[in-house]
Amino acid sequence: MVPHLITALTGPINELEQRVLESMPAIERWFRLEWMEHTPPFYSSVDLRNAGFKLAPVDTNLFPGGFNNLTPEMLPLAVQAAMAAIEKICPEAKNLLLIPEQHFRNSFYQMNLATLVRIFTMAGLNVRLGTLDESIKEPTTIALPDASTLTLEPLVRQRSRLMLKDFDPCTILLNNDLSAGTPDVLTHLHEQYLLPPLHAGWGVRRKSQHFRAYEEVAKKFAKLLGMDPWLIYPQSVAVDGLDFDTGQGLDALQAQVDAVLTKTRRKYKEYGIQEKPFVVVKPDSGSYGMGIMTVRDAKDLDDLGRRARNKMGALQDGRSVSQVLVQEGVATHERIHEAVAEPVVYMMDRYVVGGFYRVHAERAEDENLNAPGSSYVPLAFAHSSHLPAPGEKPGASAPNRFYMYGVIGRLAMLAASYELEATDPDAEDYA
Amino acid sequence: MVPHLITALTGPINELEQRVLESMPAIERWFRLEWMEHTPPFYSSVDLRNAGFKLAPVDTNLFPGGFNNLTPEMLPLAVQAAMAAIEKICPEAKNLLLIPEQHFRNSFYQMNLATLVRIFTMAGLNVRLGTLDESIKEPTTIALPDASTLTLEPLVRQRSRLMLKDFDPCTILLNNDLSAGTPDVLTHLHEQYLLPPLHAGWGVRRKSQHFRAYEEVAKKFAKLLGMDPWLIYPQSVAVDGLDFDTGQGLDALQAQVDAVLTKTRRKYKEYGIQEKPFVVVKPDSGSYGMGIMTVRDAKDLDDLGRRARNKMGALQDGRSVSQVLVQEGVATHERIHEAVAEPVVYMMDRYVVGGFYRVHAERAEDENLNAPGSSYVPLAFAHSSHLPAPGEKPGASAPNRFYMYGVIGRLAMLAASYELEATDPDAEDYA
Repeated sequence: MVPHLITALTGPINELEQRVLESMPAIERWFRLEWMEHTPPFYSSVDLRNAGFKLAPVDTNLFPGGFNNLTPEMLPLAVQAAMAAIEKICPEAKNLLLIPEQHFRNSFYQMNLATLVRIFTMAGLNVRLGTLDESIKEPTTIALPDASTLTLEPLVRQRSRLMLKDFDPCTILLNNDLSAGTPDVLTHLHEQYLLPPLHAGWGVRRKSQHFRAYEEVAKKFAKLLGMDPWLIYPQSVAVDGLDFDTGQGLDALQAQVDAVLTKTRRKYKEYGIQEKPFVVVKPDSGSYGMGIMTVRDAKDLDDLGRRARNKMGALQDGRSVSQVLVQEGVATHERIHEAVAEPVVYMMDRYVVGGFYRVHAERAEDENLNAPGSSYVPLAFAHSSHLPAPGEKPGASAPNRFYMYGVIGRLAMLAASYELEATDPDAEDYA
Repeated sequence: MVPHLITALTGPINELEQRVLESMPAIERWFRLEWMEHTPPFYSSVDLRNAGFKLAPVDTNLFPGGFNNLTPEMLPLAVQAAMAAIEKICPEAKNLLLIPEQHFRNSFYQMNLATLVRIFTMAGLNVRLGTLDESIKEPTTIALPDASTLTLEPLVRQRSRLMLKDFDPCTILLNNDLSAGTPDVLTHLHEQYLLPPLHAGWGVRRKSQHFRAYEEVAKKFAKLLGMDPWLIYPQSVAVDGLDFDTGQGLDALQAQVDAVLTKTRRKYKEYGIQEKPFVVVKPDSGSYGMGIMTVRDAKDLDDLGRRARNKMGALQDGRSVSQVLVQEGVATHERIHEAVAEPVVYMMDRYVVGGFYRVHAERAEDENLNAPGSSYVPLAFAHSSHLPAPGEKPGASAPNRFYMYGVIGRLAMLAASYELEATDPDAEDYA
């Protein structure tokens, strides 16, 4: 059951669903051909926004947490996908070193780690956790809410290999988005598989690069389906050279906000959409939904008070923001018990392995939901509901709805693949 | 929930379960390494027998029917595995021609076909059905019990390609075990992928070859786990040159039956098993459990009446049986509502995608259950129950029990891979 889709039962999104369903074999084959040319990220999660008239990704995470929010029914899919991924990358793999975020005191995050350990153990790996937190000098055991335990161990760097005591992994899996930059201990590991690669870290990655790649992917896909690509991508533009303290570059920002609003207004008119367009201004790198601002009028930026500027100007770790992404806002029209909700799709290798709704009771439909106070409702995924049921009325079938979400999630994953190829510092230049 | 395991809560099978669970990462890696050297069959199903003290495959089907007996929860796993299989074999694949059994009037078999069509459509293929039944000259639509339809079309052979009208497949999937031999229309199709290969058909395949390969696999696996391989394989020996009409070769058969019974008796003594050993005599090729005989004493063959001889001497299509397999009988100690049950594991590519119990109320625990009157109970597979839960008491956990079944099923699949390599007529001889 799709929880309380209040607007989605009519309008363009149902036409999209219909077209996606009818084209299923063609879509799957298209992905298959794309994956012949491109390598999927090892794992990823994509936040989607379904505005009723359009459906678009707004965040693609290459170090997904939240695996604990997947239901037990989804785990066999994740295990199978992990097996396929390992088989391709390093079939001889025996030991996997998992490197978590530093904020591992968070019990939800701990359950995420426990789920990842479970998935990769079942896929046939000995999994141990090594932490970048240098204050941990000895193996440290953490009790989890479900009475199981996790042990964090200090990393041991030996020449060109990263290890733990008595544990030499052939593969290192990062579940740490490297927001603070690339630690030395992770560099020059040419003998081991480091996944995702270092340039997927937020110290290097740029949202603008991702959404540029996504726009390219969306246009290719829209051509396949004979549809307007705007229905599946948010217009985005990067603004550089900002200094929120001195106000430098705010004019340029204002101009871009205005440009995106104008283009969006034109599109709304074309589709007869009555709503007021908005844009979202967010730092061009970094995750956790920090420093995200909703703007309905470029003039609003005139009155940007000091607090707002501070909020925009600094990320959680104190680094200042000089480059932002101005992105067409996509409201989420989905509700669960009257709380605003957005679907999140989880992928491993090239497979959708699960998903859930992120729900926030205190946020509006045009606001970021990835904020303290959010909760998670599994997508009704258990009863093979990501398997489409042709013939159902568009919008009336959770399986069909979720199949469409899985397609858009995979488009964003494919964009991440394009993005990582374009930004790979070791790539040979064939141009 | 494991349905009514009446003997399985104690004894060697629980030690096996324990060892399998503890060795999970090593087992999964071992399979991974085997699949680097060997190609898994495209799909397969394996009938298992759990005697409480031993667990062994008794039939490995390379043209599995019964996909309709998998629960909807299992389908996403099958779709994902189908995607992985297609990606490896022919990533450009667009059209899949599925060739069913001739007895497609059976409504259960029709639902099996519908399930296969669904799985491969969702994996991104246009699927159509072409029949070997030459009486079908026009597309023929069949109404299924669930109100959907299937259309069977006549095959069109054009030079070196097999097609349907307006349908040129790059891949042909057989769901027909070719018991009656290889039809000309399927030979010399060198431009298309024909799966499984023709030598997997029962016109060519021999059970003795399969169980010889399985014994080899079981011994390798048992070495990995440090256990007695007899716990997972049935002793088997082929007897050739039989003529049930004239009684020719019955002496040799009797001698082999006696030899297998003696060896089994010795093993029972070693393990303190009180039961009376038996052997199963079955035709060395062919499926459907035709012509299977349970023998508790070699002398019983003296009194083999004409009816029994007729039963043994002829398969369903009237061909006479001249070669049989004498196999150590493995009783099934599993019961569902007092009916005898045996687990069946379904695999696609190298993945376990589901399973069920085959149940027969009118058969004994030492008899073949694949007979008219059998019914099917899904393995409680839905709630990620093929994902093992370490720490559970052996025998008490359905997930752990089913994980073990999946491991033994995959050993039989690996044996089929060895077998098909050994019997491949096109293989180059590196010896």
